[in-house]
Amino acid sequence: MREKPNVYVVIMAGGGGTRFWPWSRGKQPKQVLPIISQRPMIRETVERVRPFVSPEKILIVTSRSQAEDLHRQIPQIPPGNILIEPMGKNTAPCLCLAALYIKQRSPQAVMVVLPADHYIADRRRFLRTLREAAGFAARQNFLVTLGVQPTEPETGYGYIQKGEILNAADGIKVFQAKAFREKPSRPKALSYLRRGDYLWNSGMFIWNVDVFLEAIKKYLPDLYRGMMVLKDSLGTSCERLLLEKIYKRIQPVSVDYGIMEKADNVALMEAKFPWNDVGSWEALTKIWPKDKAGNALKSGDRAAQGKVLAIDSSGCLIRSEEKLIAVIGLKDVVVVEAGNAFLVCPRQRSQEVRRVLQELNDKGWKEYL
Amino acid sequence: MREKPNVYVVIMAGGGGTRFWPWSRGKQPKQVLPIISQRPMIRETVERVRPFVSPEKILIVTSRSQAEDLHRQIPQIPPGNILIEPMGKNTAPCLCLAALYIKQRSPQAVMVVLPADHYIADRRRFLRTLREAAGFAARQNFLVTLGVQPTEPETGYGYIQKGEILNAADGIKVFQAKAFREKPSRPKALSYLRRGDYLWNSGMFIWNVDVFLEAIKKYLPDLYRGMMVLKDSLGTSCERLLLEKIYKRIQPVSVDYGIMEKADNVALMEAKFPWNDVGSWEALTKIWPKDKAGNALKSGDRAAQGKVLAIDSSGCLIRSEEKLIAVIGLKDVVVVEAGNAFLVCPRQRSQEVRRVLQELNDKGWKEYL
Repeated sequence: MREKPNVYVVIMAGGGGTRFWPWSRGKQPKQVLPIISQRPMIRETVERVRPFVSPEKILIVTSRSQAEDLHRQIPQIPPGNILIEPMGKNTAPCLCLAALYIKQRSPQAVMVVLPADHYIADRRRFLRTLREAAGFAARQNFLVTLGVQPTEPETGYGYIQKGEILNAADGIKVFQAKAFREKPSRPKALSYLRRGDYLWNSGMFIWNVDVFLEAIKKYLPDLYRGMMVLKDSLGTSCERLLLEKIYKRIQPVSVDYGIMEKADNVALMEAKFPWNDVGSWEALTKIWPKDKAGNALKSGDRAAQGKVLAIDSSGCLIRSEEKLIAVIGLKDVVVVEAGNAFLVCPRQRSQEVRRVLQELNDKGWKEYL
Repeated sequence: MREKPNVYVVIMAGGGGTRFWPWSRGKQPKQVLPIISQRPMIRETVERVRPFVSPEKILIVTSRSQAEDLHRQIPQIPPGNILIEPMGKNTAPCLCLAALYIKQRSPQAVMVVLPADHYIADRRRFLRTLREAAGFAARQNFLVTLGVQPTEPETGYGYIQKGEILNAADGIKVFQAKAFREKPSRPKALSYLRRGDYLWNSGMFIWNVDVFLEAIKKYLPDLYRGMMVLKDSLGTSCERLLLEKIYKRIQPVSVDYGIMEKADNVALMEAKFPWNDVGSWEALTKIWPKDKAGNALKSGDRAAQGKVLAIDSSGCLIRSEEKLIAVIGLKDVVVVEAGNAFLVCPRQRSQEVRRVLQELNDKGWKEYL
């Protein structure tokens, strides 16, 4: 039997609250909201990996403004495990910072990277996949990315093409990653689905910290040099100031674009659990329970009194908080009450909610942001 | 010069609040809401006729539950002029009751009947029409009804066909009423508009009390007999009890169906002021001010803080009360926040709001009724 790898889980929880406005707000982003269940997404994410790692081995990377709220939501995570980025610079710097922390604690650790705000059903299969990936990453010099088996021609996700098979154990296959594709057109997405050799890019990664830091050194040398300055100051009183200085000069870059699409040691592990990145109100129509007419309804979270009445309507997504929302004759419309605001828009246009935020900014109506 | 007739104005304010749910409620019907302007419709209606009659000659007929609220809204009307029907029995009994009151005070009076909740622009022309109608009704044994010059093939109104011309003065023509038509189909409404000899049935009447009571005697003899019992008790301590007894046995009937459509002394006076019976949310799209994209918006009545943000939307009717309503990509949709509820429906289906009330009743969600 092989030695069990020392696994750390890094949860990226730095996202701002724009896509789920008016429920999410600047100071209340998606990850702290009970969007899927009755519990905040970050808590769901932490609970999901608890059988796999202890709280001491879960790191949360977030922004200063969210740190306190997150700590309240997941008090089981030691405060020292909540890493604060001075500003958002996309995922590569964020994960480099986390890798340095982990390496300081455990030089041979395997690092599992998870977004804080994804929907994942079938926890057992999810954890089995993570265990398999961690084992693979501990044995091989690969950057492993989880690719989810597509179930429909989704145009909102990136796709990764499977290359030659590298491993197969416990029914979970690992492939060489052959090509990364950005969000495709509908016909392209359909062809990916039909061909069967493309997986959804889930944004979940598993790698040995050293393998990852090597990749940063090779593909993002400026980032690497900048962050190496920090290395010896981690945990000292200088850390915060230094990190701020470094971050100011760092170019924002995603780990996908900056490393994964360039590296030749990227492995693609096929994941078969139901997954959704919950990127817009529209996405929730696939997740929330539906009434007979296919309306996804959510009302009255906890103490809230809101009710929903949908007459002769179908395919709608309706969420009330304190008032009654009554709709008649609507098809595929999003109707959301949250805090001091309401949003109504066709489901297919729910990603345009950013235009509302832009207008609110322009008008100076800050109380709604 | 002819003697000036002694004119009383009767304002019918008994309607319940269903069509403008959630703004109107059982205890807060349309007439007490500031639907058109910043003032309640009943107050607008009273103010509109003030240059024509003094408050002592304005009678309000309403229900017990609304009397107090109405008195608060229009304190200038003497409390004794607010007549209370024990229950709603449609317009004929209501106007018979008012006629008895007026006849007791002034046997030769002319009675002008106005609904409390209509939109009327051009007050000068409106009052000129009323003066002309009152003069005509004082001289002739006609039941005068105001017919509004149609401006579009409206299917929500009744139509009255013009017969031979009876009078023309000050540019206002009076015709014999030839035929009453219920709400027509679209093609019929179009043909009425093209023919030019049909007017909208406005529900405003002008007649000598005696002429009206004669018509009741002839066409609604049961109602007449019933109400005659009341005649000598008006203003006595028995009135209320007696009225209740009488009303319980009265058949509900409208003055249009019960009298106007049958009588041969009906005159149709052509009115040329902008008029709307404001029968549904949809109607307000013709009345409320519009933004550049043709959205009729109303937000923040008086102290209310509600705001509206309409992006890439047109032909919508949006009313917010305390929250922000943001819409994206909607066309011809009604979006209304009022009190503890929120309504969203296509404009053309806004009259179906009664289905919401039905469902609320069925579910026992009384707090929203």
